[in-house]
Amino acid sequence: MTSAPPPGEFDLIARYFAPLAESFPGALGLKDDAALIDVPKGRRVVATMDAMVAGVHFLPDDPPDLIARKLMRVNLSDLAAKGAEPYACLMAISLPHGTHEAWLQAFARGLAADAAEFAMPLIGGDTTATPGPLTLSLTALGLVGDSEGREPGPVLRSGAKLGDRIFVSGTIGDGFLGLQAVRGEHGALAEGPRQYLIGRYRLPSPRVALGRRLASLAHGAADVSDGLIADLGHICKASGVGAEIQAARMPLSDAAQMLVARSPELLASLLSGGDDYEVVFTADPADSDRISAIAQEVGVPVTDIGFIVGGDKVEVTDAQAMDLVLGAAGYRHF
Amino acid sequence: MTSAPPPGEFDLIARYFAPLAESFPGALGLKDDAALIDVPKGRRVVATMDAMVAGVHFLPDDPPDLIARKLMRVNLSDLAAKGAEPYACLMAISLPHGTHEAWLQAFARGLAADAAEFAMPLIGGDTTATPGPLTLSLTALGLVGDSEGREPGPVLRSGAKLGDRIFVSGTIGDGFLGLQAVRGEHGALAEGPRQYLIGRYRLPSPRVALGRRLASLAHGAADVSDGLIADLGHICKASGVGAEIQAARMPLSDAAQMLVARSPELLASLLSGGDDYEVVFTADPADSDRISAIAQEVGVPVTDIGFIVGGDKVEVTDAQAMDLVLGAAGYRHF
Repeated sequence: MTSAPPPGEFDLIARYFAPLAESFPGALGLKDDAALIDVPKGRRVVATMDAMVAGVHFLPDDPPDLIARKLMRVNLSDLAAKGAEPYACLMAISLPHGTHEAWLQAFARGLAADAAEFAMPLIGGDTTATPGPLTLSLTALGLVGDSEGREPGPVLRSGAKLGDRIFVSGTIGDGFLGLQAVRGEHGALAEGPRQYLIGRYRLPSPRVALGRRLASLAHGAADVSDGLIADLGHICKASGVGAEIQAARMPLSDAAQMLVARSPELLASLLSGGDDYEVVFTADPADSDRISAIAQEVGVPVTDIGFIVGGDKVEVTDAQAMDLVLGAAGYRHF
Repeated sequence: MTSAPPPGEFDLIARYFAPLAESFPGALGLKDDAALIDVPKGRRVVATMDAMVAGVHFLPDDPPDLIARKLMRVNLSDLAAKGAEPYACLMAISLPHGTHEAWLQAFARGLAADAAEFAMPLIGGDTTATPGPLTLSLTALGLVGDSEGREPGPVLRSGAKLGDRIFVSGTIGDGFLGLQAVRGEHGALAEGPRQYLIGRYRLPSPRVALGRRLASLAHGAADVSDGLIADLGHICKASGVGAEIQAARMPLSDAAQMLVARSPELLASLLSGGDDYEVVFTADPADSDRISAIAQEVGVPVTDIGFIVGGDKVEVTDAQAMDLVLGAAGYRHF
């Protein structure tokens, strides 16, 4: 019951986290109470914050480097959907009593790897003790163009227009299946595809490069974290439109295809399962070729899965031309 | 074990938190994945992040509105020490299972009160479930002048100079004594002073107005959260100097004075106890009169407690002219 820092907080920050601040002078080496952020002319800041709790968002015995990288990546995925360039982040970490130094070392190594890969220096945060599970939160700051700038502005949820095509990056449902595999399901699957799914659950691939390239083309966008149906529902609600997507067009990984071939009813779960960290976005059908070209250039598949319609429902047409009307409840599926 | 939002997350955000975003258009009503932050010309952003865990930083059965306000205020205190103007914040809240709606309502009411009082809209964040204790983190964004602007820039820890006077705002040690009182100590104290101390522990007064006025005069500054000795030590370490402060000059509240009169040895604990959320800063002795005038104008006492010297130690001269050399360990007192 004291707010004083836990034993060794300053040493811990200096040893493990300060190296992640080196590329950002305003981080002041993590030695001050706050960081200074200069926003380049013609740009504005995009800010997002996601928390992760052991036993809720990851397993307590997951590899610490992957926990750190997932924390970074779920936030980067939000920036990607907005078309933002990663700029800097702040992290709060509440450590259970008796956390070993080796755990922290591995955690910091993972965080450093992604801070470098995505040019996302750690410029501040807080380290506390907790009597509960490991709890993390990260605030990610990105840059987009301002209203006068030549850089494209942010892609909002609210920009979808009637007649837009709906696109999604990568493959859908791997995160959902990966969590099931972590829990011991899908034992019949060969080790290769099983590990692929687990990897997709533990280490998402935020579509940062793709998101930035799409910023001048996409009308409405969201990252797929709550589930494709739910997140597309967020776009529809914010834009005052409905959506019609075709289950048969859904991009599935080879591993997901194998499982759906055996249990076709699984498809509905993949569309609402969450943890994909792909980008779902809408754009003018006339821009389809440009979008395909961008997808090829950045090496991330983009699939056209349907279109924006009137109304306020997300409607799914399945492979057997049977309507799965998820309707208004589509984005309140929990 | 899923990242899907807890039941009712969207309703909860819309009902309790969206009203706190209304004054900030870039918050997009808390309906998007991210917030947009325009930084006014000539300004730069100051960012800080503090976490609070039930059972570590507050008692689980503390009044929810005061928990929310303390979360806001410990972060505002960091902004105050940097001379920054509060601008916006993001909050992550991990709620224990079975948190009642009435609790959330009171928590949001407290947060709204301080968001309004300090002009600190809530522009984003995350709401998750936790199997552990209530865990909160807040990222506070403030504004200071940029390197070319007419507004004063940030006051860093690293700016203290040899010969500077050391000043501290308000009174020191109330937070430490307030925590003891919450735990049932100091029963001999009359109810008035006892409640005063508890109030100081539960609801700090971040010195935002004072901090902004001092921004053009203070050389080095930190907020007093880890303890006066420790936080002055941070300034000394960052500035490459030492400090000499006089215990006899320490500003104590009436309640603290009563307790120290009975137990003089308590004074050392007050100087290292933490949870004060005052500002300790250094300035040119020639500016003492201007500092006194500012203190009077904003209605917050400021006391001259010592001066910056060579070396790297924080030395305390006590009332009996006995040196309490806390030295290099002064800022590693835990």
